[in-house]
This record gives sequence, structure tokens and C-alpha cells, in this order.
Amino acid sequence: MSQARQPPLALSCPLPISDYPKVTLAHGGGGRLTHQLIEKIFVPCFSNPLLEQRHDGAIFAVPPGRLALTTDSYVVHPLFFPGGDIGSLAVNGTVNDLAMCGARPLYLSAGFIIEEGLEMETLWRVARSMRAAAAAAGVAIVTGDTKVVDKGKGDGLFINTAGVGVLEHERVIAPASVRPGDAVLLSGDLGRHGVTIMAEREGLAFESTIESDCAPLSGVVLALLEAGVEVRCLRDLTRGGLGTTLLEIAEATRLEITIEETQIPVCEEVRGACELLGLDPLYVANEGRFIALVAPESAEQAVAIMRAHAVSAASGRIGTVGAAGAAGTIGRGRAVLKNRLGASRLLDMPSGEQLPRIC
Amino acid sequence: MSQARQPPLALSCPLPISDYPKVTLAHGGGGRLTHQLIEKIFVPCFSNPLLEQRHDGAIFAVPPGRLALTTDSYVVHPLFFPGGDIGSLAVNGTVNDLAMCGARPLYLSAGFIIEEGLEMETLWRVARSMRAAAAAAGVAIVTGDTKVVDKGKGDGLFINTAGVGVLEHERVIAPASVRPGDAVLLSGDLGRHGVTIMAEREGLAFESTIESDCAPLSGVVLALLEAGVEVRCLRDLTRGGLGTTLLEIAEATRLEITIEETQIPVCEEVRGACELLGLDPLYVANEGRFIALVAPESAEQAVAIMRAHAVSAASGRIGTVGAAGAAGTIGRGRAVLKNRLGASRLLDMPSGEQLPRIC
Repeated sequence: MSQARQPPLALSCPLPISDYPKVTLAHGGGGRLTHQLIEKIFVPCFSNPLLEQRHDGAIFAVPPGRLALTTDSYVVHPLFFPGGDIGSLAVNGTVNDLAMCGARPLYLSAGFIIEEGLEMETLWRVARSMRAAAAAAGVAIVTGDTKVVDKGKGDGLFINTAGVGVLEHERVIAPASVRPGDAVLLSGDLGRHGVTIMAEREGLAFESTIESDCAPLSGVVLALLEAGVEVRCLRDLTRGGLGTTLLEIAEATRLEITIEETQIPVCEEVRGACELLGLDPLYVANEGRFIALVAPESAEQAVAIMRAHAVSAASGRIGTVGAAGAAGTIGRGRAVLKNRLGASRLLDMPSGEQLPRIC
Repeated sequence: MSQARQPPLALSCPLPISDYPKVTLAHGGGGRLTHQLIEKIFVPCFSNPLLEQRHDGAIFAVPPGRLALTTDSYVVHPLFFPGGDIGSLAVNGTVNDLAMCGARPLYLSAGFIIEEGLEMETLWRVARSMRAAAAAAGVAIVTGDTKVVDKGKGDGLFINTAGVGVLEHERVIAPASVRPGDAVLLSGDLGRHGVTIMAEREGLAFESTIESDCAPLSGVVLALLEAGVEVRCLRDLTRGGLGTTLLEIAEATRLEITIEETQIPVCEEVRGACELLGLDPLYVANEGRFIALVAPESAEQAVAIMRAHAVSAASGRIGTVGAAGAAGTIGRGRAVLKNRLGASRLLDMPSGEQLPRIC
């Protein structure tokens, strides 16, 4: 689905739906108003032949290959933030989960849970944003659902997306494929999404200079796979950030993963904000960053391909997977951060909640 | 996935998760507590090899055929009701949407939006119920997501499920396939789910005798298709009930659909409750009823097959699709209800909200 094929959309919510400036419980009742909401907002925004079947589901043929299915709900607060909104996040987040499975994202579903009283213009703005994000990522939103909950029983808008993608290769991209000696590549600087949300929420002064890194990662991942890079494992660095992700892989593989602090880019504004807020950029959520664990002989080629894509222009190698049975890894893996002085510390998972409702 | 293959589960939430009697924001943070929630509740309840990949998504091969993708969010209040709960509803609802596409349901995703403070035992009970419903419907819950929102920003628990199924036939099951003369078959009596929820919510005296009809419909639908019944269109009668569904099909086909009131079963308790509450059973939601529009020569065979399945034992023919261009149908279709005296009335869609948060 290319952007060019889509008709232009009005900036404001179309009539007659804007006779209702706010969403009412009746818009979720399955009757006339539900139909109007679907016909006037979702159908024009997500416009595609599958959605226009107006069935209980979408029916399609898929190209040969294994399939991936993934889902995420999005409850980010606030709904709009520099660099994105809940709509672009809901599309890119699920596109990225499919990409991390090594799949080409094809089709998305969208489930809306709306709190009674949401401004209709807000819903229109979010749906427009989803349309643009879907076009940019090359996916179609083919089926959906709308529920309305009474005032005080939701928080404006929650969105669930599920996605189906196809694997056009035979690789097993998973922790089980990781081998000692693999290179750990990072696609860019850390912490932009999490710090942007915190800044918006707290009204902090640095908010004007940082934007969320929210972006689709399927283009660069498919390029790596098509080039024949020996990709072993992929993970986007959302909730929990780089630290938690590395530890998850280390624990699943029972290997030791060592990364070099000096190789991990964090921009000045994010670093400053994290100091102010008492956060560690290693654990702050990103929405457009990923790590690729690749065979050592593929590392250089992989970094070159990643740098050729705008979403991962600042890619580099940040570490290496160590041998099994390294000191302290008996029975379980570990992730080690080497700082600029050469000292090492073990990474742990955060036990509390650093940043609620970040995505 | 058969029930027999599943290990038995404790009735109560396992340790150490029940050290936390309630869900906290940290359980949605992506760190140690999120992992514990997934490992102690969702993995044992939904136990299957795909889920145990613990990837950002599930990867699988599908049998040959077109695929169907569908999604629904469930916001029913209360969470538990006679005949079901939000968990069984979330599984059966999406299984049924796939069945109405003519697809064999294969895989489900599950996205949980939990309000901080939900009893951990409640989550365990819902997950157990989803496990049982998935086993009964022959589907596997293969990937999921958990978000926690702050107290007062949700309502206990919302669940989204998305489903993937495969079409093992070449039929186009959709309003576009409906032809004048087609028979309209109904799978059972109307209104049980909606009236059960209302009774629970309002504490009405008749609540003890009515149960939700929540049930998986894929078995009977696959039996119809495998028997070669000329199925034209299928719809489950959820939000909006039979009345809205018939009108949707009439409007999509621009044909006139006539149904006979005397052929539509409504049990005494539902009829009484509807009179008390000022509801029309034709518009009350069901969660285990569907209509099948089939070629006239297939009608008798179809009813026999439907009656042989427990979920549709009270099936019968309730009406007929009329010719195009019938009086009053120029440009749009209409649905007509003939009452026991032979008088006709046009069905309309409800413009307001009859029963909020019914599913």
C-alpha cells in the first residue's frame, strides 16, 4: 500500500460525525452510530480493499513462507508527544515486533477502547496518524473493533494492534540461534522515546529538543536478511530498554554478553534528562531502536547496511557474546557492561516500575 | 491442542506471584515482575510450544488456503457472569468471528490491559478460563502482551484477542454471495447473553435461571462447510443482535430479507426480562448464536447438521431473502419482520446504546 494511492484526507473530522464533538457510549453499541464512526473515520483513514469487505474479519492469501503473529496494546500517556502519538506508536510497535521475528509485516488489526467523552477530533487525528504510519511501513490495517467504556473507566484511548507477517527465509531468528563470538550491534542512540514521554508528562524544560525515536524498523531488517547477513537474533529496545533486553537474551542462551559503555550512544539532552530524573538510559524505553546479534564474519557488512538506513544511521558494534561457561554463568547467562575505565558491572532487570505507560 | 495434553492447574494462583495479592504498575513495566507474571500465570495457562518461544511474536507454518484475521476487544462488565466470564468471551468471540469468515480458527493473540489493583486471583481465574475455552475450541493462544494502567484509568481488566484462521474451501462467505431465495437459518434462541449481563449488573431476581449462551461456533460451521452445504453468508449475533445483523446484510446486498416472528425462539425468562427492562430480544446481544444464509436447496441439510451440534440444537429456518427491486428496496435493502398475525414491520438499527459493555 503506497502513500501515493491514497486519496487526500481532510485535516478535520468529517461531517456528520462531527455533529457529535465527543464519543458517546452509543458509538460503541453496534447500532447506527457505530456504523457512522466506522464509515466516517476508520474506513477513509485505513482505506483498502480488505477492510472494505466489512466482514467480521479480513480474508487474504499470503505469500509462501512461515508466518509470524504478534500483538501489543498501547496505553501511552499522553496520547500525543513530540515525534509521534498513540496511533503511530501502535502501528510501528507491532510492525517492529514482526520485524524482530524476521518477518515482512503484511496486515494489521486495530482494536480501539475509547473512553466516553473522547473528542471526535482526537480520534480522527489518531486514525490519520495510523494511516500515515501504515503507509510508511507498507502494511494495511485490514480489520478492527471499537469499544466504548463509560467515563472514568478508561483514559481517553487505548489501542491494540495485532500483526501478521511472512518469513521469506529459512533462518531461526531467536536466542536459540545465538553462538559464542556473535557480534552485538545497536542501531542508534538510546532513551529518546522514554525521555520524551517523561518530559511531556512532567512539563520539563528540555522537552522542546527531544523527540521520540518511534519509527518502523522493517525496512532495515529486511535489507539485512535479503543481503544474506547471518542474523542470529533481533530485539527492539522497548519497555525495559537495552539492559533488560540483553539480560533476557543472556538468560535464554545461558551465555555471557559483554557490551562497552563507550560504544553506546546517548545524546546530551537524554543524558541530562536521565540525570535529572534519576534514570539509567540503559533501561529507558525506545520505539525505533534495536539490537542485532549477528555472526562475527557478518558484523561489518551488517553495520554498513544498517548505517545506510535513516532509522539506523548511527549503528555500530557495542559488544560480543562470550563463551559458554564463563565465570559466573554456570546454569544461567549474564550481561556485563564495561565502562570507560575498563571496570565491569553486571546488568540486572529493574524490579520496580521506572516509567509507567510509556507505550 | 487437546485438553488431555494439558497438565492440571492449581485452582489458586501459584507462588511467588501470589506474594503480590494485587497487580501493581511494576507488573507492566517490562522488568522482573512482568517476567514473573508471564511465567507464573500466562505460560502455564496457555501452555504450548509456540508461546514458549518467548519471542516478540509467534512463528508458525499454516496449512494451504486463504487466511482470515480478526480482532475484538472485550470490556464486559462484570468480569464474571453465569455461563462465562471475560476470558471465555474473549476466546469464543474471536473464534466465532473466524468461524463467520468460514475459517478454521488456529491461533490467537491475547492483549491484557489491567487496572492497577486487580486481584491476582482474578487474573488467574480469567487465564484458566481462557485456557479451557481455547482447548474446547481447538485453538492455541500463541503470543500476548500485558499492560498495566494506573488505578482509576481502567476498569479491572480489558482483553483484546486477535485470531488467525485458515479457509479450507473456495467459497466466498459474505453478503456479496447472497442471492434471492436464500434461506435464513437461526442457530437457537435469542437474548441469553445480554439479559444475563443486565441481570448481573442490576441484581434482578431472575438472574439465577438464565445463563449466557457464550460458546464456540467453529465446530458447527466447519461441519456445514465440510458437508458441502452451499453457505452464502454467516454472522454471529453479538452487539446489535439479530435485528441489526439482518439489516446490515440487507443493506449490503440491497435485497429484502423477511423473517417470521413465530419462528424465532426466545425463552420465557428472556422474554420476561426484556419486558421488564424495555428491551427487544431482536436487538439483544448473543455470544453463541449465528445466522446462516444458505442456498434454498441446502436449507434442510444445513438445519439437520446444525441440530446435531449442541451449540445449535434448536436451529431452524426463520426466513427468506426476497427478490431484488422489491417494493421499497430501490437503492437499499431492508429487513422485514412478519408477526404472528401476518402484519409486517421494517427493522431499523438502534440509534442509541441499549446495553453498554455487553462484550
